[in-house]
Amino acid sequence: MSNSSATSWPQDVGILALEIYFPSQYVDQTELEVFDNVSAGKYTVGLGQDKMGFCSDREDINSLCLTVVRNLMDKHKIGYDRIGRLEVGTETILDKSKSVKSVLMQLFEESGNTDIEGVDSTNACYGGTAALFNSLSWLESSAWDGRLALVVAGDIAVYASGNARPTGGAGAVAILLGPNAPLVIDRGVRSSHSVHVYDFYKPDLESEYPRVDGQLSIKCYLSSLDKCYQRFRQKCLSKFSETISLNSFNGVIFHSPYCKLVQKSLARLFLNDVRQMTSDEISKAYPGLESLRNVVLEESYFDRDVEKLVLSGSKGIYEKKTKPSLYLANQIGNMYTPSVYGGLIAYLVSKPQAELVGNRLCLFSYGSGLQASMYSISITSKNSESLTKLISGIATVPARLNSRQKVEPAIFSKTMKLREEVHHKAPYSPVGNTDLLFNGTYYLEEVDEMHRRKYAQKPGHIMNGTVN
Amino acid sequence: MSNSSATSWPQDVGILALEIYFPSQYVDQTELEVFDNVSAGKYTVGLGQDKMGFCSDREDINSLCLTVVRNLMDKHKIGYDRIGRLEVGTETILDKSKSVKSVLMQLFEESGNTDIEGVDSTNACYGGTAALFNSLSWLESSAWDGRLALVVAGDIAVYASGNARPTGGAGAVAILLGPNAPLVIDRGVRSSHSVHVYDFYKPDLESEYPRVDGQLSIKCYLSSLDKCYQRFRQKCLSKFSETISLNSFNGVIFHSPYCKLVQKSLARLFLNDVRQMTSDEISKAYPGLESLRNVVLEESYFDRDVEKLVLSGSKGIYEKKTKPSLYLANQIGNMYTPSVYGGLIAYLVSKPQAELVGNRLCLFSYGSGLQASMYSISITSKNSESLTKLISGIATVPARLNSRQKVEPAIFSKTMKLREEVHHKAPYSPVGNTDLLFNGTYYLEEVDEMHRRKYAQKPGHIMNGTVN
Repeated sequence: MSNSSATSWPQDVGILALEIYFPSQYVDQTELEVFDNVSAGKYTVGLGQDKMGFCSDREDINSLCLTVVRNLMDKHKIGYDRIGRLEVGTETILDKSKSVKSVLMQLFEESGNTDIEGVDSTNACYGGTAALFNSLSWLESSAWDGRLALVVAGDIAVYASGNARPTGGAGAVAILLGPNAPLVIDRGVRSSHSVHVYDFYKPDLESEYPRVDGQLSIKCYLSSLDKCYQRFRQKCLSKFSETISLNSFNGVIFHSPYCKLVQKSLARLFLNDVRQMTSDEISKAYPGLESLRNVVLEESYFDRDVEKLVLSGSKGIYEKKTKPSLYLANQIGNMYTPSVYGGLIAYLVSKPQAELVGNRLCLFSYGSGLQASMYSISITSKNSESLTKLISGIATVPARLNSRQKVEPAIFSKTMKLREEVHHKAPYSPVGNTDLLFNGTYYLEEVDEMHRRKYAQKPGHIMNGTVN
Repeated sequence: MSNSSATSWPQDVGILALEIYFPSQYVDQTELEVFDNVSAGKYTVGLGQDKMGFCSDREDINSLCLTVVRNLMDKHKIGYDRIGRLEVGTETILDKSKSVKSVLMQLFEESGNTDIEGVDSTNACYGGTAALFNSLSWLESSAWDGRLALVVAGDIAVYASGNARPTGGAGAVAILLGPNAPLVIDRGVRSSHSVHVYDFYKPDLESEYPRVDGQLSIKCYLSSLDKCYQRFRQKCLSKFSETISLNSFNGVIFHSPYCKLVQKSLARLFLNDVRQMTSDEISKAYPGLESLRNVVLEESYFDRDVEKLVLSGSKGIYEKKTKPSLYLANQIGNMYTPSVYGGLIAYLVSKPQAELVGNRLCLFSYGSGLQASMYSISITSKNSESLTKLISGIATVPARLNSRQKVEPAIFSKTMKLREEVHHKAPYSPVGNTDLLFNGTYYLEEVDEMHRRKYAQKPGHIMNGTVN
């Protein structure tokens, strides 16, 4: 056998289609402020969160991923035999050994296609990006056999009652990858940062709730952002003699623990940019911000004066390039691994297709522990038919979001209590009302005495249109 | 930025160095048979296991991986700045969110290198192979920046007292990957098989013990082996017009839940081969085995008559091509993710270097749930200096194995009981005697009230020589 047969990477490897699933129920954050007896605006203004999606005992990480994969495959009429790689990024662990990917193989049974690589990737909210990078590499590797890759990021983010509870959320995103894609992942410039730290972690294995060191987590997020941005800039400069700044991008999309942190993060990139400018350049472009030039990054994570200046200096950029990407994060909450991909979907549905073509997007993915990466996506004009399909596939997301049912905080709180008590119980028969689920949703039917989980699909199709 | 800059894969991507860590203590399976009051030979002959390594409360998945990485880096004098990707395959989950990879980043602190991709991959015993495939793809992808990849597979395999307990084990393997390697992973022919099944899984998150459906697990393993072998053969035929049989390989290496199953697995491949032969060919080569030609694979997993025939027919091949790879599995037990790579190391130390050059090895990796793959490795004569280094790096493994301390079954049993009680306790101060550990071993020093784990390294160097 020959090992020397070298060949070249396929053209325009990237995203062919996207699908998102979020729960049909939400709690209103203003109502939650009243219910929790906290000051008005604490969640809505302080965190920047308006609504929060949540799941009853009918949904778990397996059902979420089953739903989003089935929706994507149905909508885009992709045969299951066309997939050569399937992998999942999640930190919602129901089993220490069995992968969610293996559960998803149920959907492939009828097709007879079992020759599929990929397992589960885990590192807090970063697992989806790890899976994405793995699949992109596979598409460029000697192991690629011409088939497509499917990446699924899904999580249920729940917190013990108290300060952190309003930062929950739930959802799943499926990403279909292949060559000749409309959303091309830019080659050779992505950057990463990895450090050992206990900022957010889940050592209580019997609980769904994490341990969080809030201040440390913010510092880790922002310092990772600095590092990834510096390295990304450096790579673009040395590889393509390209000087990167926020001007280089039409959209800047972040992992969103809560929307307010994302606004601060965009401001943080602005600070990085300003520090690269001469005093004269700053005076001309941003009069009054000259002092930012001398800010020491490592000492400014919690500097209120610096924060105020950079938030106001970057407000216009934020409104234009980042705020559109926060539409789903604001309405669903933190989905963990799918969060940054929910941001991508929100950005894509925020303007007409014609205005997307030629756009370049910057994405920042962060997972506590920690692992972070920055990379960019170019929306090419070359594969416009595929772009039309991709966009039609997500066009009805806003309508679906608006069709959700609002639930009283007291009921939400009871549902959380129920999850606490039963989420690892076996045998167990879920009690959640399946009428409340979107049509086409997979749900937990039964957990038997051996902890084996059975799922069923609610009849009908999720309100999401079809792709023509 | 240009997305069209296509280039070719680097030459001879594969394994540059290997390191294995196993516990310094073991229990003798003959003594365990007596202690467990089972018939003599049940573990030693029935399972094919002679000794079983185990860990006290001083070791966990993090410490195992810290030890094996540190040993590999020290021994081969690899600077931590030379690593661009680090990933871990494991099913020993101590935290649902924080990756073992992020814990390993402690070793990189001094070097200042934090620009490192990779997280943890999970699917039972297959996670290490998933990590390996991911790193190989990275080395061939546009994201590769010229640095090396480091894959770590580690697990602690323990079972509740009873029938399954003697199938435990523990260990970790580190695999350094890059171009111009002496052990080249053959391109374009690896095959996979993936199905949703509950054969072995770990839904009791607070326990270290798995749920196992023994019969189902064997059937799943053997049927996955059939599928992967058929697909591997098919790919070699269509890509390189090469007809594959056991004759194509010098070594055939398997994931080893216990050695007896591996012998049956080699026999299973033999059965697959025989079914491809004409009656005349069988009569000439294997007189008396003509009936095997008509065996229906799906109906023969537990057919004792068929098993007897194929075990005897393949005995010579087994002794030559597979038995040498079981040396560590027989002495340590099932290490889960590192098992098949322990098999590779055992094979490599079984003959003089000159006899390894030009060898082609077949590897079968299986993880319950399930995900399985088959691939092949060619030991090239081109990079002989690297081969010498790789081999010297593992040359002292047999001496280290023989230097372990034997522990009475009663003490082993007490240690298991202690692990049951404390392995998720916080705060916790481990009580295990660190004098018993190999020099240079990382061990758990303390778990604080926030479940944060602190490790220390025992002074001195593990008995493993250095690479010159």
